[in-house]
Amino acid sequence: MSAIFSFQSLARCSQTKARSGIFLTPHGIVETPRFMPVGTLANVKTVTPAQLKETGAQMVLSNTYHLHLQPGEAIVAGGGGLHKFMGWNGPMLTDSGGFQVFSLSEMRKITEEGVTFRSPRDGQIIKLTPERSIEIQNILGADVIMAFDECPPYPANRQEVEAATERTYRWLERCITAHQRQDQALFGIVQGGVYLDLRAKAANTLTELDLPGYAIGGVSVGEPPEMMAQIVQATAPLLPAHKPRYLMGVGTYREMVIAIASGIDLFDCVIPTRWARHGTAMVKGERWNLKNAKFREDFAPIDETCPCYACQNFSRAYISHLVRSQEILAYTLLSIHNITELIRFTQKIREAILSDRFLEEFGHWLNSAETDNR
Amino acid sequence: MSAIFSFQSLARCSQTKARSGIFLTPHGIVETPRFMPVGTLANVKTVTPAQLKETGAQMVLSNTYHLHLQPGEAIVAGGGGLHKFMGWNGPMLTDSGGFQVFSLSEMRKITEEGVTFRSPRDGQIIKLTPERSIEIQNILGADVIMAFDECPPYPANRQEVEAATERTYRWLERCITAHQRQDQALFGIVQGGVYLDLRAKAANTLTELDLPGYAIGGVSVGEPPEMMAQIVQATAPLLPAHKPRYLMGVGTYREMVIAIASGIDLFDCVIPTRWARHGTAMVKGERWNLKNAKFREDFAPIDETCPCYACQNFSRAYISHLVRSQEILAYTLLSIHNITELIRFTQKIREAILSDRFLEEFGHWLNSAETDNR
Repeated sequence: MSAIFSFQSLARCSQTKARSGIFLTPHGIVETPRFMPVGTLANVKTVTPAQLKETGAQMVLSNTYHLHLQPGEAIVAGGGGLHKFMGWNGPMLTDSGGFQVFSLSEMRKITEEGVTFRSPRDGQIIKLTPERSIEIQNILGADVIMAFDECPPYPANRQEVEAATERTYRWLERCITAHQRQDQALFGIVQGGVYLDLRAKAANTLTELDLPGYAIGGVSVGEPPEMMAQIVQATAPLLPAHKPRYLMGVGTYREMVIAIASGIDLFDCVIPTRWARHGTAMVKGERWNLKNAKFREDFAPIDETCPCYACQNFSRAYISHLVRSQEILAYTLLSIHNITELIRFTQKIREAILSDRFLEEFGHWLNSAETDNR
Repeated sequence: MSAIFSFQSLARCSQTKARSGIFLTPHGIVETPRFMPVGTLANVKTVTPAQLKETGAQMVLSNTYHLHLQPGEAIVAGGGGLHKFMGWNGPMLTDSGGFQVFSLSEMRKITEEGVTFRSPRDGQIIKLTPERSIEIQNILGADVIMAFDECPPYPANRQEVEAATERTYRWLERCITAHQRQDQALFGIVQGGVYLDLRAKAANTLTELDLPGYAIGGVSVGEPPEMMAQIVQATAPLLPAHKPRYLMGVGTYREMVIAIASGIDLFDCVIPTRWARHGTAMVKGERWNLKNAKFREDFAPIDETCPCYACQNFSRAYISHLVRSQEILAYTLLSIHNITELIRFTQKIREAILSDRFLEEFGHWLNSAETDNR
């Protein structure tokens, strides 16, 4: 790992593989485990960077695929790079576009060279290769950049997944060769679908490359929750202990607890902002639809224990009124609350691990019905 | 005027009727002339109260008509009144609902008693009378409340306007009788359409009632700009000099300068937030559509002289990107800028009046083509 990146494990749970650490980047530290908010198009939807800072956000994601299509990486670079362009001076991570190419694009064609697809914005034919993805991410300038991978769908047969996993490895080697900036850490992505032996093989071969961090990708793509748990439980411990581990696209409260118990450090997910735009508050593991009649005259804050701007200043009745009126401010306040809530959840887990009380305080999440996907 | 309200004129322009003053309310001062942002449904669209405070906003409006329909004044009262419910602890003003009943409602029936109309939300039949409007405004609890008036449309013949103006006067007397709270100042509204003698008569009869403030209503309803200027120039000077004067629903840069030159102190208008939601920035009297291609790679702030959060932290290129991406954050940033811009405009006018340089610095607005309705 480059000198400007370091990961230090501060404590490990005595009964699980959960750990607390500090990941140092050129734009500051990330205390792990920690939830990372998603800023797809160089903004976390409905939230200003000043508001985002107050949620406790440390590392923020953005998407290479989306930014390449709009406004284009040249404009982001012209604006001084991603941090300056969007006004976020903390740590940032860009994904490679691999997942979006496979999940969002129509008419894509995959070859050993890369992926050709039609832009959903203007119909233009776009080619993304490992080299091109890394070049774009070098131009965007996030602290952590991700390898360009092939993410097989669920379900997919073993042969397809094996081919995609092996191609992902070859593409990773090309990403490493293409990567130009020492102030950016390139993370590898473990694929392998639901086939645990393919996951194990990928984890072992990637580990040999001694990258500054590793991610588990290709989960939360439609497989049952218990299958995701098995993948994470089997794969995370195979990744090097002295490097940060990132579970991509996860998650919910329960998914995060399960993953943390397996040694995962970082998470990202769009649910806090997406649910906010549906009028939903995340409260202590529950989802509340603020449009529900019971909130109309409920003058308590969403969560009286929450330090966020929304909970410190407004009542459920007020936010319910804004949701009913389809006022945009509702989505801002709920996004602020939901992001704060998920970050606080991972912060509390971190503190529990530091005092070796993880299982005591959060073990109930591991025991609950697996289909209750909160 | 009640002891907790006072209006002090600090300076008067030596060449026009422009004046600078301080209006004291139970929730703080309003330095006049000053633009007041509109928070129709107990929020200024897309902007938090913390962000609103930073724009320089002092007095904020909200709408009796809208709040009566949703969430209903009982819920606002349950939340501690309008200030606490929406988290704005500065001065507030509610309009009476008169204007909205006449401009937004279908199937309305006007009698001497009041107005019956069908709620556009749920089709329910609603009756609004002077007594009911004041009762609702007493319950909402703004610092300034407005008389329930009949606002004739434009065009309307003299007979119709005269009848509406006389009814507005009789309704005002009923409003005064109905008004219950000493910590709220009831302002009268001068109607009279485009008939200057009816305006003059209304201004004179209202003045005799010695109310704590006066408004000119029924302008900006479709009449030509030069007609609005004539109405304001003829009417404002007839209102008592030691009371605040409020021009309802105005305005643009030019309309405000013309009105200030006639002695108007307060303004409200939805344009800064409405235009923001159309991707438009207000800059030094101009409107800029941020979607315009020329802003794509323009890395300057919207206005390098503007102290607002948007201008201090983001480029035109970034906001253009957000507008093109239909990201809600664009509307928040543009609303913050546009509100700041109009408030700063009235603040600069105030300072110019205090140093008797109003005509020198702002006279060019009075001379420009009247049809250039900026």
